[in-house]
Amino acid sequence: MRALVFDDGLKAVDLPIPERDKGQALIRVDLAGICNTDVEVTRGYLAYRGIMGHEFVGRVEDADNARLIGKRVVGEINITCGECGICRSGNPRHCERVKAVGINGWQGCLADYVVLPERNLHIVPDSVTDRQAVFVEPLAAGLEILEQVHVRPADMVAVIGDGKLGLLTAQAMYACGHRVIVLGKHVEKLAVTRRMGMDAAFASDYSGCVDVAVDCTGNPSGMETAMSIVRPKGTIVLKSTFHEGSAMNLTPIVRNEITCVGSRCGPFPPALRLLKTGAIAVEPLIDAIFSADEVIRAFERACARGSLKVLVDFGAGR
Amino acid sequence: MRALVFDDGLKAVDLPIPERDKGQALIRVDLAGICNTDVEVTRGYLAYRGIMGHEFVGRVEDADNARLIGKRVVGEINITCGECGICRSGNPRHCERVKAVGINGWQGCLADYVVLPERNLHIVPDSVTDRQAVFVEPLAAGLEILEQVHVRPADMVAVIGDGKLGLLTAQAMYACGHRVIVLGKHVEKLAVTRRMGMDAAFASDYSGCVDVAVDCTGNPSGMETAMSIVRPKGTIVLKSTFHEGSAMNLTPIVRNEITCVGSRCGPFPPALRLLKTGAIAVEPLIDAIFSADEVIRAFERACARGSLKVLVDFGAGR
Repeated sequence: MRALVFDDGLKAVDLPIPERDKGQALIRVDLAGICNTDVEVTRGYLAYRGIMGHEFVGRVEDADNARLIGKRVVGEINITCGECGICRSGNPRHCERVKAVGINGWQGCLADYVVLPERNLHIVPDSVTDRQAVFVEPLAAGLEILEQVHVRPADMVAVIGDGKLGLLTAQAMYACGHRVIVLGKHVEKLAVTRRMGMDAAFASDYSGCVDVAVDCTGNPSGMETAMSIVRPKGTIVLKSTFHEGSAMNLTPIVRNEITCVGSRCGPFPPALRLLKTGAIAVEPLIDAIFSADEVIRAFERACARGSLKVLVDFGAGR
Repeated sequence: MRALVFDDGLKAVDLPIPERDKGQALIRVDLAGICNTDVEVTRGYLAYRGIMGHEFVGRVEDADNARLIGKRVVGEINITCGECGICRSGNPRHCERVKAVGINGWQGCLADYVVLPERNLHIVPDSVTDRQAVFVEPLAAGLEILEQVHVRPADMVAVIGDGKLGLLTAQAMYACGHRVIVLGKHVEKLAVTRRMGMDAAFASDYSGCVDVAVDCTGNPSGMETAMSIVRPKGTIVLKSTFHEGSAMNLTPIVRNEITCVGSRCGPFPPALRLLKTGAIAVEPLIDAIFSADEVIRAFERACARGSLKVLVDFGAGR
């Protein structure tokens, strides 16, 4: 099968179709997405080596659970033991022995096939297209914010960053009834935001008046912006992970008694529901769709500054 | 009157007794404390110039409210307008026009006299000594943690730092029924902690098992330690303010979905109550008491690494 592998460098390689263990499903990937975390992985994040990618929609070819076979599915990316104290405390995504698809100890989905535990899979409703379904994982990550933070109806939510994560996270909050403003740097992306019905502005226009600031910049400077726009006793949500540190002074957090919440993966079912209702516009978020034979070019495009979501079509012509 | 002034350098000077405005009280300072924030001020924090100090106990010499005159008092350090949106939203300590005694726009209390709004004052119960009362302000700051974070009975709380702020904050949490371990570097201070009934250990002994980690190190490295010891979905409380930034990678906050809460000044009434019940041992926290004529030496001592609380006695021999 075709696969994009990172191993001291990115390579498009031909590999055997993986074998599944008991309780696992073999999935034929139709469409896969590339995320900033994938880019960070190629810069050394978590020292991962193997097949890249964790965003996909595909069809189950083989599984123990016969009801899954032939079904179109998306998959949660955390492989958990189900037995440790953290799993049993109801936080399996933080399992002590967690692995993560294409990020940490588990082969990714930028390939013709991927293997996942059956319990990680969610069946995609027929009315949700592949192009929508491939956004389930990052959309779920956006909804995780509302799992963690009590955002109130009168709150002003600012999403910092008008990139793919920012525009999707903003839509997630907006679709759940919140007042959302996207703070960015790109006139054309802020225009997209406005067409979706949200407000948009340059970050520098705001200071100290935002109740909940969500950093989706993928850049350490996002935290600085968040600290400057959030009101005293407000909340900052951090979404970006970095391979390297940077200079930072957290004194505003203390002085203004800000709560800062790290936020990672989220729940798939509400993400599928929002896609099904049409509340999330994915087309404006798609930068380009490459064929699987162009996966290296696709990754290069995803690394380019300002690129939106790059997708790789493994299903086409197969 | 004698006063310690910071103005491009520390000076012990002779100044006129300050005049009070309507609604303000003139207080004769008996005992004052020096805090790490004072040390940071002399390094440039908030560009403050004027009389230093914000921890004191004294006696009201003059006030509009006749019931205050002659009373022994402590004073909240934030001078608030009472009229802005934040004051009216119930968060006056974050007033848009806030001033802070000896830190920002208001003359401090390392002097024979200090002026404060009457509403900032709390009368000290007779059974609370001056040496106890001078700890009200930092003890209230420790209790602010419990105003902000829901610490549960089964939680393990780790206070990082065995300095004066750490030992006082740990006692505040312990006095409120919590399981507290102090993580420090100094054998003799950890021994003090154990004599108070708390656990004590070296920070490196813990990893990923703490529910609530409170950084009282006064050092940017405290955040790194906190990120390493707190469990996934746990809480970090930050207490330290710095004049300068430092290199930091907040990725563990995101990956482990940690909540990080900045915490500053707290409520005086419960602090006075805990001192009155004897639940807080202040004597082990006192490094030295200097006479007011030795205030420069006192400040130098407070700047020394590892010093505990340095007090300045303005009342002695007056």
